[in-house]
Order: sequence, then C-alpha cells, then structure tokens
Amino acid sequence: MTLSTARSGLNQRTQVLSDCRPSDAKRADVLAAYRHVRSETERLCVPLEIEDYVVQTMPDASPTKWHLAHTTWFFEKMVLANTRDADRFGPSQFDYLFNSYYNSLGQQFPRPSRGLLSRPTVEEVYRYRSMIDELVEEWISSSDRESFERLAPLVTVGLHHEQQHQELILTDLKSVLGQNPLRPIYRPTESTMLEGKVSLDWMTYPGGVAEVGTSDASFAYDNESPRHSLLLTPYSLATRLVTVGEYLEFMESGGYRRAEWWLSDGWAQCRQERWEAPAYWFRDGSEWKIFTLTGCRDLVADEPVCHVCYYEADAYARWAGARLPREEEWEAAASSEPIVGNLLEEDCLHPQPAVRPDRMPAQFFGDVWEWTSSPYTAYPGYRPPEGPLSEYNGKFMCNQMILRGGSCLTAAWHIRSTYRNFFPPSARWQFSGIRLARDAF
Amino acid sequence: MTLSTARSGLNQRTQVLSDCRPSDAKRADVLAAYRHVRSETERLCVPLEIEDYVVQTMPDASPTKWHLAHTTWFFEKMVLANTRDADRFGPSQFDYLFNSYYNSLGQQFPRPSRGLLSRPTVEEVYRYRSMIDELVEEWISSSDRESFERLAPLVTVGLHHEQQHQELILTDLKSVLGQNPLRPIYRPTESTMLEGKVSLDWMTYPGGVAEVGTSDASFAYDNESPRHSLLLTPYSLATRLVTVGEYLEFMESGGYRRAEWWLSDGWAQCRQERWEAPAYWFRDGSEWKIFTLTGCRDLVADEPVCHVCYYEADAYARWAGARLPREEEWEAAASSEPIVGNLLEEDCLHPQPAVRPDRMPAQFFGDVWEWTSSPYTAYPGYRPPEGPLSEYNGKFMCNQMILRGGSCLTAAWHIRSTYRNFFPPSARWQFSGIRLARDAF
Amino acid sequence: MTLSTARSGLNQRTQVLSDCRPSDAKRADVLAAYRHVRSETERLCVPLEIEDYVVQTMPDASPTKWHLAHTTWFFEKMVLANTRDADRFGPSQFDYLFNSYYNSLGQQFPRPSRGLLSRPTVEEVYRYRSMIDELVEEWISSSDRESFERLAPLVTVGLHHEQQHQELILTDLKSVLGQNPLRPIYRPTESTMLEGKVSLDWMTYPGGVAEVGTSDASFAYDNESPRHSLLLTPYSLATRLVTVGEYLEFMESGGYRRAEWWLSDGWAQCRQERWEAPAYWFRDGSEWKIFTLTGCRDLVADEPVCHVCYYEADAYARWAGARLPREEEWEAAASSEPIVGNLLEEDCLHPQPAVRPDRMPAQFFGDVWEWTSSPYTAYPGYRPPEGPLSEYNGKFMCNQMILRGGSCLTAAWHIRSTYRNFFPPSARWQFSGIRLARDAF
Amino acid sequence: MTLSTARSGLNQRTQVLSDCRPSDAKRADVLAAYRHVRSETERLCVPLEIEDYVVQTMPDASPTKWHLAHTTWFFEKMVLANTRDADRFGPSQFDYLFNSYYNSLGQQFPRPSRGLLSRPTVEEVYRYRSMIDELVEEWISSSDRESFERLAPLVTVGLHHEQQHQELILTDLKSVLGQNPLRPIYRPTESTMLEGKVSLDWMTYPGGVAEVGTSDASFAYDNESPRHSLLLTPYSLATRLVTVGEYLEFMESGGYRRAEWWLSDGWAQCRQERWEAPAYWFRDGSEWKIFTLTGCRDLVADEPVCHVCYYEADAYARWAGARLPREEEWEAAASSEPIVGNLLEEDCLHPQPAVRPDRMPAQFFGDVWEWTSSPYTAYPGYRPPEGPLSEYNGKFMCNQMILRGGSCLTAAWHIRSTYRNFFPPSARWQFSGIRLARDAF
Repeated sequence: MTLSTARSGLNQRTQVLSDCRPSDAKRADVLAAYRHVRSETERLCVPLEIEDYVVQTMPDASPTKWHLAHTTWFFEKMVLANTRDADRFGPSQFDYLFNSYYNSLGQQFPRPSRGLLSRPTVEEVYRYRSMIDELVEEWISSSDRESFERLAPLVTVGLHHEQQHQELILTDLKSVLGQNPLRPIYRPTESTMLEGKVSLDWMTYPGGVAEVGTSDASFAYDNESPRHSLLLTPYSLATRLVTVGEYLEFMESGGYRRAEWWLSDGWAQCRQERWEAPAYWFRDGSEWKIFTLTGCRDLVADEPVCHVCYYEADAYARWAGARLPREEEWEAAASSEPIVGNLLEEDCLHPQPAVRPDRMPAQFFGDVWEWTSSPYTAYPGYRPPEGPLSEYNGKFMCNQMILRGGSCLTAAWHIRSTYRNFFPPSARWQFSGIRLARDAF
Repeated sequence: MTLSTARSGLNQRTQVLSDCRPSDAKRADVLAAYRHVRSETERLCVPLEIEDYVVQTMPDASPTKWHLAHTTWFFEKMVLANTRDADRFGPSQFDYLFNSYYNSLGQQFPRPSRGLLSRPTVEEVYRYRSMIDELVEEWISSSDRESFERLAPLVTVGLHHEQQHQELILTDLKSVLGQNPLRPIYRPTESTMLEGKVSLDWMTYPGGVAEVGTSDASFAYDNESPRHSLLLTPYSLATRLVTVGEYLEFMESGGYRRAEWWLSDGWAQCRQERWEAPAYWFRDGSEWKIFTLTGCRDLVADEPVCHVCYYEADAYARWAGARLPREEEWEAAASSEPIVGNLLEEDCLHPQPAVRPDRMPAQFFGDVWEWTSSPYTAYPGYRPPEGPLSEYNGKFMCNQMILRGGSCLTAAWHIRSTYRNFFPPSARWQFSGIRLARDAF
Repeated sequence: MTLSTARSGLNQRTQVLSDCRPSDAKRADVLAAYRHVRSETERLCVPLEIEDYVVQTMPDASPTKWHLAHTTWFFEKMVLANTRDADRFGPSQFDYLFNSYYNSLGQQFPRPSRGLLSRPTVEEVYRYRSMIDELVEEWISSSDRESFERLAPLVTVGLHHEQQHQELILTDLKSVLGQNPLRPIYRPTESTMLEGKVSLDWMTYPGGVAEVGTSDASFAYDNESPRHSLLLTPYSLATRLVTVGEYLEFMESGGYRRAEWWLSDGWAQCRQERWEAPAYWFRDGSEWKIFTLTGCRDLVADEPVCHVCYYEADAYARWAGARLPREEEWEAAASSEPIVGNLLEEDCLHPQPAVRPDRMPAQFFGDVWEWTSSPYTAYPGYRPPEGPLSEYNGKFMCNQMILRGGSCLTAAWHIRSTYRNFFPPSARWQFSGIRLARDAF
Repeated sequence: MTLSTARSGLNQRTQVLSDCRPSDAKRADVLAAYRHVRSETERLCVPLEIEDYVVQTMPDASPTKWHLAHTTWFFEKMVLANTRDADRFGPSQFDYLFNSYYNSLGQQFPRPSRGLLSRPTVEEVYRYRSMIDELVEEWISSSDRESFERLAPLVTVGLHHEQQHQELILTDLKSVLGQNPLRPIYRPTESTMLEGKVSLDWMTYPGGVAEVGTSDASFAYDNESPRHSLLLTPYSLATRLVTVGEYLEFMESGGYRRAEWWLSDGWAQCRQERWEAPAYWFRDGSEWKIFTLTGCRDLVADEPVCHVCYYEADAYARWAGARLPREEEWEAAASSEPIVGNLLEEDCLHPQPAVRPDRMPAQFFGDVWEWTSSPYTAYPGYRPPEGPLSEYNGKFMCNQMILRGGSCLTAAWHIRSTYRNFFPPSARWQFSGIRLARDAF
C-alpha cells in the first residue's frame, strides 16, 4: 500500500466512522485505521538508532521512546481499562512513567526528567506496544456490541492522539539531532525541491457573520466546538506563507536588534536567549545555513520560513506593516480550501516553496503551522468531555497561542480547517511559520 | 476641598477637557486637574516613613520613591521635552533611572533592581517633583496656543498615567508592609465596615450585536479603541462579587489541594508556590487572619474575596459550576451602570460587602478588579499612537488577562466601563477578585 | 579625643582587660571600651542618608540598619539575657529579625531578604541601641561581682564583634553606593595620597618549627587557638602588596581572557560573571576608573590593588611566577611586625601606596586583607566554646579561604598577627588584596 | 586469567615499569598493562543495555558512552598526537565532544549536556576504541626507542586515568539506575555477604615528624608530591569504618533535623535538598531500604555506611564526639598497611562488614573512600607538570575535600597510601564513607 492510497483510504474511513452501518463493517474500518496509524508511528522510527530514542533536550520535548510508550498507555487506559475484561490487564507498571498529565489517572513521572530513563529499553517498549496492539485488535474484532459502541470513539481519539505524537516524535527528534555538533541526518529525502518564485498577493474576505467551529458528526476535538457565529470585519490574507528570503530582509533591517517591532515579553526573551535567526539556522562563516531533518544545506529563499516563535512572527508582521490573522479569519478563509498540501504523506519533512496558479491562495494546509494572533481560549458554550479526557484540551486554555493548518509533519487525515493547535508564544521547535493579514476596512 | 467635591469637580472637568471653549478656560481646567492629581499622589504618601519609600519586594512592584520620580519624568519627557523651550530642561540625569520601559526614549535601569537605589533620596525626589511641577504649571498657563493644543492631551495622559501609579503605590506598598514580620499598618481607617448579607443573584443579559470599546471624545486609552461590534450569546452575571465566606467553602472542599478545577499552568504554580489561600491571608493558630492596609484582623465573611490571581479565580468559578465573564460581556453589562462604588475617594482601602436593594447588580465599579476570561489582545482595527506612547499599551498584548471595573484604590475619575486593565494570570498583589458568569442559552 | 589617642587608649585597655586589678578599675575600663566602640559605630554612619541604611545589594551584604540592630541584639542576648535581671528584658521582638545565624537562639529572618524590611525604621533602631546601651552600661557599673566576672568577657566579645560589623557596614555600604549609577560619595577624605614608588623586594624566612596561634591571655577568637607547632620550609614574602600598576600588566597580558593561570572554579566564575577587572573598577571610554568611598577617580599605579577575590589573587600570583602565602608563613613573618599601618583610625578609607625605608617589609597590617592559600580549617586540638558562641566561628570552617592582616577599614584595636579572617574564594566586595610568596628551597 | 592473577600480575608490572631492563621487556609489560586495563573497562560494561550508555543524571556524572570515548581520546591526544606519525591521525572529530576540561587542547562540549548526545552511537564509540587501541598497540610494539622512552610514561598515566574512569562509570551508572523508578539491577553478585559484628576500637599513633607524599620512582600523580615532612600531634583512628547501624543511631537522635552538629553550609544544603538519609536509601513503608548495584535490599547493620557527603560525615563525627582524620594522619597510619581489601577485583560492588582479628586496624583500602577533614591544597613545593597534564590535578585545588583509601570500585593496582582523591563537600554519589579520629593529647 503506497502512502497515497493509505491516505485516501483513511479519508474514506473518516466519513465511515460516523455512519450507521452494521457493526461488522465498522469494526473492519476501525481495525484498519488502528493498524495503519500504529504502524505509521513505527515507520517514522525506522531511521533511528537506539540512542536516538532516549535523549530529551528540553522539558517540552520528549524522548521518542516515551512517545511510543505513552501513546500505547493511552489505549490501555482509555480503552482496555474500560472494557469488561479490564481485570485482565491490571494496573500497568507503566502508569507512573507514561502518564503525561492526567491527574485523574494518578501521579506522573516529572516531565523534564523523561530523558533520565534508560529503562524500559526500546525493545521493551516495542514489546509493550505489541502486547497492547494484540489486545486492542482482539477487542475491536470481538467485543460485544454495547462495549464497541461505547469505546470505539475512544479508539478514534487514541488514533488522533497518536498522530499528534507522530508529529511530536519528529519535532522532538529534530531537536535531538539538531543540537548535536555532529548534526546527524534523520533521513535523506527523495523529494526534489519545488521551484519558482511566487509573488505575495492579497486575497480579501468580506466581513459579516461567520460560523466558526465544528458541527461535523465525524471526529473533532472538544476545543473545536461548539460551532458558533461571530462578526468579522473585512480583512485580507496573504496568498502564501512568508518566505526565507522575505524574513532575511527583516533580519537585515535589524529585526533582532531593534525593539520597536517586538512585544515586550518577546523582546525580553529575544535578548535573553540571544536570538539572531529562526531556530535551526546557524552561521557558517558569513553565511546562514539551515539544519533540516534531511541534512544541512544553504537557505532557499522561496521556501517558507519555519521554526519562528509567535514573538518573531508577530514582530515580522509589524515590520512588514501587516499583522497576524485572527483564528476566525483564518478558519473562515480556509474552510473552503481543499485539504491538500505538503503534509506528512508527501514525505518532504520540510516546508516547500509555494506553487500556485493565478492569484489563488495557497499553503493553507501543510508546510508550517501558521501562528494566529488569537490566544487559546474556550469557544462560547464550550464544555470539556466527562472523565479523564476532560484534561485533554481544556486545562491548557491559558498562556498559549492558536496555530492553524498543519505542517509538513502532519498526517493528512489529522488536519481540518477547524483544527486548533496551540503552543506557548516562545515555542520555536515546532514547524511554525507566518501568513500575513491586514484590515480591509 | 473634600474628597467628594474633588471627585465631582474632576468628573466635570473630564467632559470639559474635550470641549471647544476658549483656551483660557481650558488652561484653568488643565491646571486644576494637574494640581489635583499631583497633590493626591503626595497625599497618599503622607503616612509613610522614609524607609518605606525605598524597598522593592518583587520585580513587578516598585518602590514608592520610584513611582514618585517616574510619573514626574513622564511629564518631563512627554510634555516639557516637546515644548519649544525643551532646551531649558536638557537631558535629565534621571532618564536612565526612571524610564520604565520606553525603548524609544533610551536604556532603562533594570526593573528588578529598583530597590537597590538609595539615591536619589526621597527628599531629592520631592524636589524633582516640585521643579517639574513648576515648569509644567508655568507651561500650562503661558504656552502659546499651538503648543498648548498639541501637548495638553499629553498632560491629560500624564494625569491618567499618574493615577495608575497612585494605585500601584498602594498595592506595592502593601506588599512591602505585608511581608514584614512586624506587619506595620499603612493608616488606620475611619470608615466603618458595611453590614448585611446580600444573596448572590443572577442577572441575565440578551445576546445579539453589541458595541464594545470607546467612541468618547473625552479621554480613553488607545487599547479601548476602536469601538466595534461583536456578537454576544445570552449570558448571566452574578449580581455581586464572590465573598470571603464563599471562597472559604472552596478552600474547605479542597480548593488548593485538588487539581481538577485548575488550569494546568495554575496548578503547577499553586504547588510550586505552596498557595493555600489568597495573598495576605495568614494562619493564626487554626484560624485565618487577613492583613490589610489598615491593619490585621479577622476575616469578614461578606466582604469580597481579594488578592486572588486569575488561576484562583478561574478555579473557583469552575468549582462553583460557573465561569468568569468575557470582557465584552462585562462591558455590555456595565455600560449602563453608574460609576459609583467603593473607589479610592471613599478612603476604605479595602473592598466592602455589597449593599444592594432588590436584585439589582452591584459592585461593578470599585472594591476589586474583576478577572475576565479574556486574554489581553488588540481590538479589530487597533492602531497604537505615534511616538513613545506607542509603547504605552500595545506591546503588552500577550500573556496577560483583562480585568475590569477598578478597585477600592482606583480614583473615580480614572475608571470607566470601557477601561481595560491587564495583569499576568499569576498576579496576586493587585486588588483583584471574582464575579461569576454563566451561559444563558 | 583624637582618633590616635583613642587608639592608644584602647591598646592600653586591651592589656588591662585581662589583669587582676580590683573590680572597680576593670569596670571603668570595660565601660570606656563599650562606650568607645559603640559610639564609633554610630560615627561611621554620620554621612548616611536614611535611605542608605535600608538597601541590600546581595545576600552576603546587609543593610546598615541591620548591622546597627544586630550588634545591639548581640549584647542583649549574650550579656543581658544571662544576667539575673534577664526577665526585665523579656523576649525581644527583634529576636527573629536580627539573629544572624545562631540556631541555638531560634529561627532567623532569611538573610537574602534583609533589604526588604522598611521597619523598624532607622530611628527605631537607634532608639533600640540607646535602650540596650543604657541597660548594658548600668549593668557594667552596678552588677554584682560574680555576674561581672562571668559576663564581662562576653561584653568584650561583643565589642570585637561590633568592630567586625563596623568594617562590614563600610564594605556593604560601598556595595550600595558603588552599584548606583549616580555613584554617590560616602565621605570626602581629608587625607592626601602618599607618594613614591617602592620597589618590590623579597624577604626570606627560614624554615623549621614555628609556633602559630594565640596563647595570649588577652582577647582572641576561638579559631586562633590552640597555639601549636608546625614545620615550615624556607620561604620568601614580597615586602609590599601587589600594586594597581602591576595588576594592570596582568590584565594587559590577557589575565581575564586566558584560562591557563586560573583555578578551574575561578575560571568558570570569571566567564560567567564576565569579570574584566577588580570590583569597583569601571571603564570610562578607553580608560579604567575606580570607585572609592571618597569618590570616583583615576587609578593610582602605586596603590595596592584591592577588591580582588581569591581566584583573581591566585591567578595573578601564578602569572607572576609566584604563589600566595600559606597562613602560617604569613603569621610567622608578621608576628614580629608592629601593628601599625593604614587602619580605620587613619580615616583614609582606601589602601595607600607603600612607604618604606630600605628593604624592610611593609603593609602587613591595614590597607587590604591579604588572601592566603590556606583554606579555613580548625587548628589541631581546636574546641569551640560552649553555648551560642560555639556557632560564632567553628561552623564556617568549610569552603572559605583565610585572609590576614586587616584593611584600611579595620580598627587597630581589632587586629593582631594571629587573627584569621575568612571569606569564600569568590568574594570581591571586601577590601582584599595580594601579597606574593615563593619557595626558598 | 582470573581476577586475582590479573591483579598480582599488574602489581608486578607496576614495579617493572620503572626499572631499567631492556626496552623489549618493557614494551611487553606496557602492552600487557594496556590490554588489561582497556579490556577491563569494557568488561564493566557487559551488563549494560545500549540505553544505559546514554543518560546523564547530573552535571558531575557522565554517560558511560562519554567515559568510553573520553578515555580513548586521552590516549589519542596525549600519546598518538605526540608521536612522529601524529599526522596520521589528524585532528579528531571528537576533540570537541570528548575533551573533558583541557583548555590547552581546545574548547569543550558543555559538561552538563553530555547526556544530550545520541551520536556517536555506542557502536561507533566502540569502533573508535578499537581503532585507537590498534594504533597505540602498534606504537608500543614498534616505536623507536626515543619515542618510547618519552611517551611510555604517558601511556601509564592514560591507564591510571582510565582506571579512575572505570570507577566513575560505575558510580555514574549507579546514579542512572538508582533514580529510575523501575530500579534496575546492574548485575547480580555472586559474592556472599561477610558476617560478624566487629567492635569499634581505637588505635593511637604517636606525634612527631612524619613524612607524607610520594617519593616512589614508580607511578604516582603529581598532587602526591613532593614528599615532605610535617609535625603530627598524637592522634587515634578508629580501627574500622562507621557502620550502617551506627549511622542509624545518629539519624534516630535527630541527625538530619538538628543544626547543632552541622557545618553551616552543610546544614543549608541538608535543608534545601531535604536530606533524610544517605543517598540510595529509600523508605519502604516505615523501613529504610537500600539500592545497590546488585539490587534493592534491607539495610545490613554491620556494613560500612556509604554515599554520605563530607557534610554528613563531619556532622556524624561531631555527634559521635570525635572528628574526621586529617589526610596526613590517615596517610601516616595507612603507609604501613598492606593494600588489600574489598577492591574492584573482589567484584562485591558494595562495601562489606569489617573482618578483623584482634584489635588490628581494618578497611584502610577498599570498601569506601574515607572523607578527611583536609581541603585539597598543594603540598609545599608542588609543581604541576608541563603541558596539558598541568591541568590534570592542580587547577582543582579549591573547594574540594580529600578522600583516601579507595572503594569497592577501585582497582587494586590503582590505589596506594599516598593517593589523594578529592570531591566537593556536597558529593554523595561516590562510594564515600567515614572513619573516625580523635586527638590523643
């Protein structure tokens, strides 16, 4: 099965998951999705050495080994532990080690210390995955109808959760490899860089009442609901992402040395961390080079700038005489765009220059997560789900900014126009970039 | 002149400041306002010992001496330095010491080190105030018309700015006195505590299009504009603030020991700082006592809880089955309320129990700043002013939450329904409290 | 009474304190010493503004106000509380605030927070001093013989203790004034700088058995005893201190940029703190200037370098092809030198160039404390005293280096050849300098 | 070859290394020693999983992988790079990563970040070892006579250096395994615990002139020289180490809760780190258990207490009415003792109860490093060697305390009575324990 057939198969399955067909077909779909996502995670780890699984470079990033175990523990606790045969599994010895942040499920091993764990070994973690996979697959195939109807949605949550961790595995691993003076390569790519300089145009969107948030019966996270109306004032969005070449102009006009374009907190951090360029850029003599998952190389002027934090994105926008989009502006514009782009299945592992006919908008999905100017808050009428999943999203609704659209590391099945990603404004290790906006009134 | 005549005089003057009367009358008004606000600042310092002016307890709070000098420097740089006689003043020797955060006006002495400055002495600072006062008053009285028209609005900004620092003088001083084991009193109060338990009722407000922000020709800060429309869904607000007695129930049901009601960042901070109660509460044997500017005493069940941070306010609201208001909900409700309440002119120096006939809303203005669930962001179409004042508000639009309504330390002239105060979600040393909200749909 | 008569009077009294004369004469001597030392402390504070008493620049340095109160509390707890009338004094409200580090006398207010106390005020502290002075003086004059014999030695300890704090008052105040961008002057001096360049010669001392430590019946600290024998190998000491001019040569040959002369811990600290010169030196354009208690001025090449830490002293010595003296080498050499020099009574407030006929050793006493290469440890057979004074010296015998000889801020009565001062190797705010040594075998 | 024959072989070789036999025999000895020590290092790693090689728990401890590479780099830089064929090796790509602290050999990768390096992999490090081993062995066998005479001593230094790292591999690995909640075992031991309670007696040693330091023509570190005379006062040493049972008495009488026995710095650290017992002890219900390299188990009352820092050792001694030995006291006593004991070759991996006939002293060598009260300083006349080895010992002569006698992880060939080990007074992860001393005059 090629990646593209896998993708279209998944897209089809997504719709299928919410239908009312007899249980057998549903079970088959769930089983196929489970097998696909779980194996995709392990496929991403093929190029790794055992040592690469262990290291943690900063509190926010976790070792690959931890991701592999945590996503497995998630199925154990959210699905298996709620089946009638829960007593077959008993309390996992990994409850403490691989609980990320679910206070309702017990104490957690300190997050900043995940890189201090040499055990369980990588091999033991893979055995743990196999054991749980066997049990989940058996449960999908043979559980009674009530149990299946009740818990199958949690399998789906678990798969989306695992896809989030697929992206984190790669971003966290990039942090491990990128700070190593030997600058090891994750994997050479077979993709060839796209060519062609595409001008930055503006697309204007009307104001008025807009609907934002999900009403889809298929899967979405709780923080995307409820769908609600709000008033937009007319606005314009850039038709493509800000490029490396444009960002270099900002740098050359003193972007990292002059306070005037920066938020106060951003400027303080810029000086304290001595930022001079996006993350993963490094000086080679008088030139800037870039470290990517596929190796070190020269900058490419037309590719989207990446690994900038909110403070940098916001400062760039102010320098450019523009601003960042509000999340509702982005969503209203993106809701009519097709979900295509440089996503994980393209296997590029880095954002690509825009390719775009005429003056059509491009790059809404894939390439880089786009910083919005919207802090992460609850939609009007938002209610977190009951149970442990109440801790999944709601308790993080403070001190974070919304990002939209997915990156080149995001699985196609995983992204949608209502999807709300969020990170602290100082986060740079994610594949995050910039789309400009401005008022049109 | 009693406090209440001063207040009504000021209210009258506010309207006056924006009218088109001949210059002479305007000058008289500006002069009166200037003299009133400047002297009011010094009146607040009367009870202080010289030593009290010097100490800084934390980076966010500044010594009284610094406030006195900084507000003066503000007039020097924003007004005098822009007059035709600017060369009469020359570069102030205090430019570096008393510039708070205006990068466009030069380097700043590090904020966390303001308490390390024994010089200039308090006496020298008062002499500096007198010197600048003389120059400003002379300028108000005798400047040419063009200069007056151009710079008088900056005098007004300076007065509002000074009123903000009046409140900070008292909150920062409370921090100095409150952490001293001798628990010194700022000033005994002559006010008597109000009595009477007022039930907590709910007032429901309709949804629909609402106008938010200022369109007033009189004074407002840039962050209150532009006035704009937005959609509200129906909501209810509690008719009074959450009381000490109600907050104690939260504490007694494990409020500071159970993670389930807290935002993730809040819970982390709660455990790290070992919070067990609002700031300025302390245990005396098995009982809680409270430190106030007027002395230590028992808790009063009916007075509003105060000195809680956003995390505590949010956790309390979740525990209570409610939520905090959004800032637009608060503003829509408050815009029709009169600006009366327990404000600075009442000289209570602490929030007071609600007094309220029938089921009318109370305490919108004064008592405590009310935390909203709205992060501090720019209104659609917001533009910061030109010049140094561009740094006044806009560059702080990140990592802070909006508070509304003023406190018992806020001057009546200073507050209005569109006023947006902002502090980080962990700030506890301000007079901040809680009004509950809930959806009404 | 001039300073010099005061000094000789004290010297006379020192011997007197240990004699066997009838009690009345002794009482008079103790009383005179008490009055002299106590008033001398207050004399040092005459040039201060009230604000200067309050500030603390770092954990190791205390506010002047704290020193004034702590030395008073010392008499209250060590003397008054042990008299038969102890109940007259009751537990001091200042026990917690002004206990420095005596665990056996109760909890202590955190040392790094001493600068957060605006109360008690300076005036209240002076009143506290007066009250205790009255009680102590009354006790000295009228106590019964047993009580006087038992506690008079503790008065003496209290006076030596107070003299240590006299020096600390000035060093800590220098830190307060020196970090203020206004660079205030403590007091202009009337002294004129000595002139004349004195060559650096070497005096060689024979090896063999030497006696070190005190056996004097008059006052000495516990850490100077017991007197004991040890073996010295022949050694030479420089006849004067290292000068500013010599130290500049070290700096110009890369002293602060090349690791090779530094201890590992010293080099790490040098880079972390970005040291480039001794403390209180600052660049004025391309030139170095120096801040002193008597004002800012040019460097004087012939005056002793001062405010270097152990790491700098040690690095300088290695660069110079020499080493620092061991404390026993210093003591053996100094024991035959007269206790004269640039001490506190000279009122210079800064080290002075050496003045020396022939090739005689100079500057053993006064000018600067001389770093030795000896860590602070117990002499063989050392026993701390009983009671709270057991905490005076013994518990600090780790992680500190011995300094010898007193500085220009040390009272003449206070210093002697057996005196062991000690500070951490990174301390720079004391008046500490360098005398070179080398092997002579 | 059994361990014991290996040991006696090495002892023989040690003497041999300094003799004047023809070069061929010497070469054979050096080659045998090289092969033995290098392979012994790898033997210690046999029980490890690959993941165990990577983790770093604290700045002072390094990953096993780093130790393996650093000791190899040491031979490359100290030996191969100084041969005539140095150009064959070229600048190592590992110069930056595996240089520990030799400033004269270039920059160093930051020590606290050694655990962030997933590459080079463990396999690559072993290949690096093989490559260098081949080159060194070839050089030993076939170098010209001049080169061999000049550099063979550096091979010997490299072997002693590697033995130091053998001990560190185990102590650092114990830290990795011990902090893992799964508490993995390094290796089950085949040794059986010795039995029998041995009373603590005192052996008295006369005072007078003693010789201390090395004059041996065979190998010793520079910091053990020069041999010199000093005066001892009569003293007694305990005939065995302090046991777990005795240390428990200290704990039960409030050892970790009462300040009176502690140095000031020690008490501050005790409270800050919340120490309650030696490192690697943990509570299991109401009982203390201990984690060892061979697994978790109950305490054994008669085995020596281990993993105490200097502060704990010093506090224990004061509680016991004794003191710690000075290093010269220890050396004078140990110089006549045979170098036998529970050393690495015994393969116990943990200290053992004393076994001792009559009242003879025991446990001078092996079991635990014994804290002395002597700070680490230079002997009179000490000169560091020329070249990079000048940085081996001398630059650490500050802020550290001397330990003597080796531990159960020290190779027998490596230890001697003049050997001076040194660690900061707060270090607990080494196998460090307590022998009591007292004055005998």
